[in-house]
Amino acid sequence: MSFEPQRLSAQSAGVFVISVTPFTPEGELDLPSTDALVDFYLERGATGLTLLGMMGEAVKLTAAESQRFVDHVVRRVAGRAPVVVGVSSAGFAAMRELTAASMDLGAAGVMIAPPSSLRSDDQILNYYAGVADAVGSDTPFVLQDFPLSTGVVISSAVILKIVERHANCVMLKHEDWPGLSKVSALRAAQAAGTSRRIGILVGNGGMFLPEELERGADGAMTGFGFPEMMVDVMRAHAAGDGERARDLFDAYLPLARYEQQPGLGLAVRKHVLAQRGAIRSATLRTPGPVLSAADVDDVHRLMQRQARRLEALS
Amino acid sequence: MSFEPQRLSAQSAGVFVISVTPFTPEGELDLPSTDALVDFYLERGATGLTLLGMMGEAVKLTAAESQRFVDHVVRRVAGRAPVVVGVSSAGFAAMRELTAASMDLGAAGVMIAPPSSLRSDDQILNYYAGVADAVGSDTPFVLQDFPLSTGVVISSAVILKIVERHANCVMLKHEDWPGLSKVSALRAAQAAGTSRRIGILVGNGGMFLPEELERGADGAMTGFGFPEMMVDVMRAHAAGDGERARDLFDAYLPLARYEQQPGLGLAVRKHVLAQRGAIRSATLRTPGPVLSAADVDDVHRLMQRQARRLEALS
Amino acid sequence: MSFEPQRLSAQSAGVFVISVTPFTPEGELDLPSTDALVDFYLERGATGLTLLGMMGEAVKLTAAESQRFVDHVVRRVAGRAPVVVGVSSAGFAAMRELTAASMDLGAAGVMIAPPSSLRSDDQILNYYAGVADAVGSDTPFVLQDFPLSTGVVISSAVILKIVERHANCVMLKHEDWPGLSKVSALRAAQAAGTSRRIGILVGNGGMFLPEELERGADGAMTGFGFPEMMVDVMRAHAAGDGERARDLFDAYLPLARYEQQPGLGLAVRKHVLAQRGAIRSATLRTPGPVLSAADVDDVHRLMQRQARRLEALS
Amino acid sequence: MSFEPQRLSAQSAGVFVISVTPFTPEGELDLPSTDALVDFYLERGATGLTLLGMMGEAVKLTAAESQRFVDHVVRRVAGRAPVVVGVSSAGFAAMRELTAASMDLGAAGVMIAPPSSLRSDDQILNYYAGVADAVGSDTPFVLQDFPLSTGVVISSAVILKIVERHANCVMLKHEDWPGLSKVSALRAAQAAGTSRRIGILVGNGGMFLPEELERGADGAMTGFGFPEMMVDVMRAHAAGDGERARDLFDAYLPLARYEQQPGLGLAVRKHVLAQRGAIRSATLRTPGPVLSAADVDDVHRLMQRQARRLEALS
Repeated sequence: MSFEPQRLSAQSAGVFVISVTPFTPEGELDLPSTDALVDFYLERGATGLTLLGMMGEAVKLTAAESQRFVDHVVRRVAGRAPVVVGVSSAGFAAMRELTAASMDLGAAGVMIAPPSSLRSDDQILNYYAGVADAVGSDTPFVLQDFPLSTGVVISSAVILKIVERHANCVMLKHEDWPGLSKVSALRAAQAAGTSRRIGILVGNGGMFLPEELERGADGAMTGFGFPEMMVDVMRAHAAGDGERARDLFDAYLPLARYEQQPGLGLAVRKHVLAQRGAIRSATLRTPGPVLSAADVDDVHRLMQRQARRLEALS
Repeated sequence: MSFEPQRLSAQSAGVFVISVTPFTPEGELDLPSTDALVDFYLERGATGLTLLGMMGEAVKLTAAESQRFVDHVVRRVAGRAPVVVGVSSAGFAAMRELTAASMDLGAAGVMIAPPSSLRSDDQILNYYAGVADAVGSDTPFVLQDFPLSTGVVISSAVILKIVERHANCVMLKHEDWPGLSKVSALRAAQAAGTSRRIGILVGNGGMFLPEELERGADGAMTGFGFPEMMVDVMRAHAAGDGERARDLFDAYLPLARYEQQPGLGLAVRKHVLAQRGAIRSATLRTPGPVLSAADVDDVHRLMQRQARRLEALS
Repeated sequence: MSFEPQRLSAQSAGVFVISVTPFTPEGELDLPSTDALVDFYLERGATGLTLLGMMGEAVKLTAAESQRFVDHVVRRVAGRAPVVVGVSSAGFAAMRELTAASMDLGAAGVMIAPPSSLRSDDQILNYYAGVADAVGSDTPFVLQDFPLSTGVVISSAVILKIVERHANCVMLKHEDWPGLSKVSALRAAQAAGTSRRIGILVGNGGMFLPEELERGADGAMTGFGFPEMMVDVMRAHAAGDGERARDLFDAYLPLARYEQQPGLGLAVRKHVLAQRGAIRSATLRTPGPVLSAADVDDVHRLMQRQARRLEALS
Repeated sequence: MSFEPQRLSAQSAGVFVISVTPFTPEGELDLPSTDALVDFYLERGATGLTLLGMMGEAVKLTAAESQRFVDHVVRRVAGRAPVVVGVSSAGFAAMRELTAASMDLGAAGVMIAPPSSLRSDDQILNYYAGVADAVGSDTPFVLQDFPLSTGVVISSAVILKIVERHANCVMLKHEDWPGLSKVSALRAAQAAGTSRRIGILVGNGGMFLPEELERGADGAMTGFGFPEMMVDVMRAHAAGDGERARDLFDAYLPLARYEQQPGLGLAVRKHVLAQRGAIRSATLRTPGPVLSAADVDDVHRLMQRQARRLEALS
């Protein structure tokens, strides 16, 4: 590699786009299309990329395909942005393997969501002790807190303990619902000096981005067919113009809402990305939903209305 | 009773507001405040009211309180609108008791969500056979299909079988995600003559109302601090002005989204209703969330922005 | 009442039989049959009775029926044994109501399992703070820890905190799997003086009774068609004859195993009790399983083999 | 390969032992120890072996390790018995890969449990359509029906549809609870000519083996530290001596029950196997339970009592 790989740190911030994984219409990994996708994300202002998240259809790839995809993306990014790799796995051996391979290939860090079997605080803490060991103390990791999907409830107190016990836990991907109070609680602990700083990037398609930024979030780590929404909302927020941040956010919200439908959402996102030329095919690997003609009509109408409203804001 | 109680039927349509249950700051049932709430809902254009839904804190009431609340509301409504009562219960004996009492008091019908233990199609069909028996063949009932909350997945085929087997199943409260295709499938079965008509009212706080109306929904049975949103969107849709329906919808969407946060949502809704004078206290019975100062600020800001945007639309 | 009601305490021990609730073949509460059942349990050596547990079909009774059943049993027991009442409920208002009524009627205490929605330690602790308030500081309560059924994992640390915070938590109904280490941990905390003593009665149909007694359990709070198994195993254990305790246990195990089948178990138990003359009808309220002819053959064969084996042991 | 690989068929029957996966004390795959284990199972009378089941710690292996283990076992078995491989996976790509590799290596077929996200009948049928495609029409597969672990309820009707639609579904690994009626229902459908024959092997550690054999099961596909229990019970059953079958079963039941503890069970099984010399180390890969000294005492005592009782039966 001719570039110096970036490392995720507790100071990392911005918009880390959860990347889709492009497939050919036949369901094969589409690496050529991946180049265009990477460029699309970076040109829209992404600070970083996160691969193999839930919306990256990670579980549908073989171990070998996962590594091939990471390798391809990291090469294409070529040092322009940090690349985080989702390594959540049913077992630590597979997690260890993908982590080691990803870091060797030049990833900036890894992300791990808890398995849905975890219940008590101790179970969660023990699990992340295993995670910290599996990824290795040199590998920065992101704790993904997404109870709506995992069924695992991680209290603020447990997050703070994980942060305290494992120096390589540098970031929270926060997508608890309701989660604004959690952002506030974590920032309060940091302000009070009882916890070190970690990055807090928000998820849920950015559906609460303006409020989350005001509570102290450092950015977003999520996906959306128009990732520039998150970039532009953040910029307006950073410029102190909260009303403009919300005006922009509101313009994208009707489509963002449609894309957040559980189950169908990724098909919507890939359709939009294909429409915008970011990927060649909107194909999901099976099993996965397929948009009906009526769904497609909905999406196009929402895109048209969104374009008109953004026009009025510019 | 001096008025003729209305009965729910397969032709019922419009906006049935899922009513909150008002409590005093001490947590007692606030019947005087209920009068104002009923009037508020009807003045905003509600076609009907639905009591003791999940957002009506039904599980927090004793059996006696439930009956007292139904009695009070039905008397206040005084025939101006049909009143549906949520009678979901862990056992059929309690369901039978509340149903009989509610219908005696003048309710138009009852609503039942499945218990979260159901899994297979047969289990669901057997359960609704028990429901149809428990509520009695004379009592119209609404099937509540809300997998995000119940964890029970009811396919279109199963809904059609329940409709076929039980003549008193007259309405679907649809809040599946993704659910637009389900509305389409049910309407297609009706159009093809393979199923009789039932009413389809949508839920989820109306978050997909414009699209659902276009797929053939008859209205909404859900709650929101501004129930006039649903009324006005439906009117514009009925008038053939889909763009205006969406303009109105979009104006309310930022707050609707905030109110749809799992866990926190009902506290937001009650706060808004209290702000608007519809109830005297925003109190939820314990266990229940309490809004932080930051949450309240968020809500007020969203209300202000919403007012400005509606002003611009008028 | 002419007798002094007994109160559950941290010293309570022995076999508290989880009572079935007898119904007529038509599904009505069978109070006359209840008299025979109470006498049956006490004559087999039960130290106490626990009503309205999961295996008491509690959720299938109306609030009024629950109170009527408690009243009837307490009167029949007439001070011969303490009566504990399961008051688990979806809401605190109903729990408060049934608790107050039960204690007024002469119950010795109440039992509460957590609702299946609880996940994190804080959620569980908050819930039991609500429980302690709802039942009142004068009412001794049993914490039911049954993750296989509730899906809620309560760590030993959380149990110890509940015990520390709420003086009226006097007993654990332990039926975690694997749970032997939990009994050991709780007894170790008590021995170390870091926690006060509570009673630990075991559940799961007594399927691990010999081992649990050796770890320090005070008895059992569970059901079985032959409750004398638990009484006799405890007596042999108390007499220091662990081998005989296990011989007796082993003789009953094949049937106990059959009765522990999730879903079908209660129908087996009621069939056995009806066979033994303890109840008049083995009817379960709907929805509930019905034994097939083959199931009945299995049960009878197991009963015959059990009788032969006990004969050989006597 | 110098031997002809056996293929699983709808006529397959007997005891397919769910093999543990041996690890060194350091947690590495212990292939030398695997040789002894294979021989142990076959010498105790196993008809076949099933690798990489839930009790084979399948999720803790990397894809490469899984293939290496299958390869090693198949070579050691050397045609003496059919080898089935568990290929359950979060995604079809990984399932396809492991299936192809296993069949190439000489496996007799594969086994697939449903992912815990499945709910409705249609979802299950669609999933197994995907399975049938992923494993390929030439590969015989076993449907694993284990709701206690997966949370997925598969009705008899759905099983019959899967059997009808996919000729390569040749066997059911039945471990539903209560499940005896399911065995009866499937055999009745076969007897009535409405369904073709499939093999039905039972699970749950054989805890219901005598009753299941009487209902028409063809054997067992499960694990236990004393797999000869299943072999001997089957032989007595096949010889028409149901009482002896039950005498033998009852002798093993106390330990079988102890080994069936969720969570702890596999540690018990590996301890017993290590005690018996079948594996060198009882190590489980993390995360996994570790037996306490008291647990070990329990197991040894149960083994001693079991030995005495078997002695008395011989």
